[in-house]
Amino acid sequence: MELCTVTIMPDGIRTQVAKETSLFDACAQAGVEIKGACGGGGVCNQCLVKASSREALKIEGTGSLRPEQIENGYVLACKSRVIDDVVVEIPSSSRVLDHRVLMEDEGRLEAYPFAPLLAVSECQLTPPSLLDNATDWDRVKAQLGGGDPPLGVIRQLPMALREGDWLVSLAAVDWGSGPKAVRVAPGSTKTYGLAVDIGTTTVALSLIDMATGEILATRGSYNRQGRYGDDVISRIIHSSQPGGLEELQRAVVGTINALIGEVADAAGVSREWIDGVVVAANTTMSHLFAGVDPSYIRLEPYIPAFSKLGPFAAKEVGLMVNPNAEIYLLPSVASYVGGDVVAGVLVSRLHQGDELSLFVDIGTNGEMVLGSRDFLVACACSAGPAFEGSGITCGMRAMEGAIEKVAILGGEPQVQTIGGRPPVGLCGSGLIDCLAKLQDGGIIDRTGQFVGDWERLRPSAEGREFVLVRAGEGACHGDIVITEGDIKNLIRAKGAVYAGMRTLLKALELDVDAIDRVIIAGGFGQYLNVEDAIKIGLLPDIPRSKYEFLGNTSLKGARAVLLSREALAEADQVAASLTYMELSAGNTFMDEFISACFLPHTDLSLFPSVIGKEVLAR
Amino acid sequence: MELCTVTIMPDGIRTQVAKETSLFDACAQAGVEIKGACGGGGVCNQCLVKASSREALKIEGTGSLRPEQIENGYVLACKSRVIDDVVVEIPSSSRVLDHRVLMEDEGRLEAYPFAPLLAVSECQLTPPSLLDNATDWDRVKAQLGGGDPPLGVIRQLPMALREGDWLVSLAAVDWGSGPKAVRVAPGSTKTYGLAVDIGTTTVALSLIDMATGEILATRGSYNRQGRYGDDVISRIIHSSQPGGLEELQRAVVGTINALIGEVADAAGVSREWIDGVVVAANTTMSHLFAGVDPSYIRLEPYIPAFSKLGPFAAKEVGLMVNPNAEIYLLPSVASYVGGDVVAGVLVSRLHQGDELSLFVDIGTNGEMVLGSRDFLVACACSAGPAFEGSGITCGMRAMEGAIEKVAILGGEPQVQTIGGRPPVGLCGSGLIDCLAKLQDGGIIDRTGQFVGDWERLRPSAEGREFVLVRAGEGACHGDIVITEGDIKNLIRAKGAVYAGMRTLLKALELDVDAIDRVIIAGGFGQYLNVEDAIKIGLLPDIPRSKYEFLGNTSLKGARAVLLSREALAEADQVAASLTYMELSAGNTFMDEFISACFLPHTDLSLFPSVIGKEVLAR
Repeated sequence: MELCTVTIMPDGIRTQVAKETSLFDACAQAGVEIKGACGGGGVCNQCLVKASSREALKIEGTGSLRPEQIENGYVLACKSRVIDDVVVEIPSSSRVLDHRVLMEDEGRLEAYPFAPLLAVSECQLTPPSLLDNATDWDRVKAQLGGGDPPLGVIRQLPMALREGDWLVSLAAVDWGSGPKAVRVAPGSTKTYGLAVDIGTTTVALSLIDMATGEILATRGSYNRQGRYGDDVISRIIHSSQPGGLEELQRAVVGTINALIGEVADAAGVSREWIDGVVVAANTTMSHLFAGVDPSYIRLEPYIPAFSKLGPFAAKEVGLMVNPNAEIYLLPSVASYVGGDVVAGVLVSRLHQGDELSLFVDIGTNGEMVLGSRDFLVACACSAGPAFEGSGITCGMRAMEGAIEKVAILGGEPQVQTIGGRPPVGLCGSGLIDCLAKLQDGGIIDRTGQFVGDWERLRPSAEGREFVLVRAGEGACHGDIVITEGDIKNLIRAKGAVYAGMRTLLKALELDVDAIDRVIIAGGFGQYLNVEDAIKIGLLPDIPRSKYEFLGNTSLKGARAVLLSREALAEADQVAASLTYMELSAGNTFMDEFISACFLPHTDLSLFPSVIGKEVLAR
Repeated sequence: MELCTVTIMPDGIRTQVAKETSLFDACAQAGVEIKGACGGGGVCNQCLVKASSREALKIEGTGSLRPEQIENGYVLACKSRVIDDVVVEIPSSSRVLDHRVLMEDEGRLEAYPFAPLLAVSECQLTPPSLLDNATDWDRVKAQLGGGDPPLGVIRQLPMALREGDWLVSLAAVDWGSGPKAVRVAPGSTKTYGLAVDIGTTTVALSLIDMATGEILATRGSYNRQGRYGDDVISRIIHSSQPGGLEELQRAVVGTINALIGEVADAAGVSREWIDGVVVAANTTMSHLFAGVDPSYIRLEPYIPAFSKLGPFAAKEVGLMVNPNAEIYLLPSVASYVGGDVVAGVLVSRLHQGDELSLFVDIGTNGEMVLGSRDFLVACACSAGPAFEGSGITCGMRAMEGAIEKVAILGGEPQVQTIGGRPPVGLCGSGLIDCLAKLQDGGIIDRTGQFVGDWERLRPSAEGREFVLVRAGEGACHGDIVITEGDIKNLIRAKGAVYAGMRTLLKALELDVDAIDRVIIAGGFGQYLNVEDAIKIGLLPDIPRSKYEFLGNTSLKGARAVLLSREALAEADQVAASLTYMELSAGNTFMDEFISACFLPHTDLSLFPSVIGKEVLAR
């Protein structure tokens, strides 16, 4: 039987299937479930995937794919048979994954009873008469209640009542202080909510049927603010240029509006029926989305303009939903501990457990929360953009062609890339792996300096560099190297994260062993090799079974809030009860940081399993 | 000593002064006080008045008048000596009248303690540090309090705090549920309020210093909606045409914005410092200002969209003040009993007295409130536009050249016009006088039909008409006549008002004699001759001393609310406790109306003093 390799992206899962297996079945075999309402009939268009090559497939039908989709490499998984090795990218819209994640979510989020922030009430009113001449609003209010509605709702009222022949529906939002009408419609209507995760790099959102809690569609894309800089610092700098704040706000709102269009179309829902939005974002993203100057987040003593805002109308920021829909930003805690972290706590239920949990979200900043039902402490350490592949000579984001795995045998490296493509550079997980393997191979010492004489080692502008892939070895653009400077950057980054964690523990007079559970959140966790991360001293050396990966906890937290007033109340409580430890301010962080700038650490007793393996390796 | 006649407009007061008297002194002599901070030095420009002719004046200086002002006939009253008969128009901005009215107001409004809706709080904040890193808003809130502010205030915050070096001022509005920040400013600031009366015909507003309660400037002008029709009905009809509602809203907001510019300039106040606005208007004007469809006000069963709205932001309607300033519309009671009537009750303190008072505001609609501290009933009767001079062959508004007084001796009429100008037509007061005199002279009978044979009586297209002024007698445009149709219109109008009042009284089983006080509000009252009005049966025949004229109670009521949270609360109570009697719905109005369509009435016992005079006249 002839076999072909199918690489599934962005999961990075590789599977071997018999030639002529459909892509749909190949994915299922690899554990990646694709939607397929029509059962493989090639008509529902739900199993849309993107193939690296059409030549590797036998295409038996294209359903109602649009020409531009076909041109861009999209195929129907059910109608494409594998005839050669192929890389397929599965858009989140085509995944049952969402539902699978939701199932997990629901298990987790059962803690929060279904009490959605939005509801529709419907009533057949008695028409007015000369003797019963209450105003339109008084008539509606008497039957359906609700405080003072926004002017926009009053403006809809006279027409809606008469168009619906006095059968009227009122969509109302309730943030805990009673329902407030945000839309009135003739006859019946439905109400939808939007959960939004605004990340510095990516934006993701889910459209939710507020009557059932069902996630109708989830979409994600790059944050269009990317053109103004990769990290929050460069965005903040841009925001202080003339018109910069407005540009950044427009960019992120534009990103969200495009995604709203996608989810609304996918679900067949009018955007005007989206009556409430819950947003989880880091503090800088929250400021930029709301159009508030974030400048002082960046400057000592790092002061945000706000941590918690009252809900505001969608039209205040130009979100293309019901203009009177209300938007709630999950409250933040400090300049570098935002609503996304609060969402993470909510989803991981750190604040509800008896056990001591550590929540870690590593991006440009390492954000950490340590706690249990008894206390919550948080810190943020500037890991720098190294783990995002930035500031590293040959660094890159986790995308096709990025080296995600490195093996070094006798000084000779072998690399594995995402999608099996010719290597282009190193992404975060590749860098961590590379660092671990350089040390394993005795090519660098515990301080990160090159030792010995290796063929691949050569002088560079600033010290020495190790050539991982030579241009002649299939690299797309010249040699792929890792320099002494890169290694220092990585060690500083991992040292900052570890030191932050240790500072939190020390402040509580606890040891790493006290941690019962480590929750890794976010996209970084998706590709992370825990073993490597422990080996270089990024994560604590505790039993691997204590590690959990929760995925996009920011989006999940926003969804939880949208669907449960109790989760909303808890989010506020979490934000209020989280003690923020500013690592720049008189504590042991700097000492911890210096101690952590070794591989894995100056104090080897903290990494017993790593020492054990080192001994074995020699 | 040579004498000259000075006619003061729009008061219609005429006085004779010695030649070379200054206009300033002439007005003072007539009881019309003009502002003059510089004491007649010709420099403060406060005594600006408009003269009908520069030739009638000896002008000794023009201060800093702008060329266009001079071109438009403006002079400084202190620097203009009268050398011939002249008509001068005193803009309200030049009057001490406002202050005099205010003094009266204050007497009246002492019932409402000074508790302004707007206040500034100022604080020198401790700058943040690494160990005291509360957010900007949390820092301000801790010192100055206040609920969730609008997003716009948060947007101002980071800059304001640092620009003012942590000395910050917060302007907040408090509608009774605690202060809400609407503006933040670096260093110190002041807050100003705007009281607005939106009438169908005219708009007037006062700019008020909220710290002292001082009225800084008052301005009025025609409502620019006038181009879309004279009365509320034609406006409502226009509003249902495509784009009509938006046109009407723009027109009234444009009118107000122009006046805001004037008062702000006059007081040297930035428009951005106006943080709160209280508006009194009839129900239709309230709808149009708020951009809400008023269509169903006009159609049986006459249902407004709302009676009371929560305060909304100025930017929601495009008012050019602080965009986050809050606007409050005085609540209305019914389709034809609006916030202007509620303001009238508030100002006249009808609801606080032991005596039985009748509040009457006659315009296109006659709006009436009868009551005391024990009860309040209101009605509106469609008087038609006759008293505004509309729908009458030679009717016109009360302006220069309008006949305001008529005398008829032996069938020969003599007329007196506003400003002593050649007669152009008849305004409301002239029409009432004319009707009274036609009856006195035996030219019409009690049904309003012409009787006898008079030289001035001639056939017309629809019956007969009486020529008041012949073209040859100096009238600007042809003959000025009053037709049988005009008289019928006037009788119906006055009959409706009287019948409305009687219906209110009857519902309470009271007689006209029970009325202790009649309050005449609005511009119509300004020119009204009570004796004439009683003679034709428009107003009840009770002792003249019971009549009071309170001027623009709508504007005064808005001011009272702006300056007293207690008045605000009472306005809401008044609106809620006012029982509206719909005259179209099963009550005695139609019978009363038919009985009142005589001069003065079918039941002469209701007009004892008129009968007495009739007897005397014969």
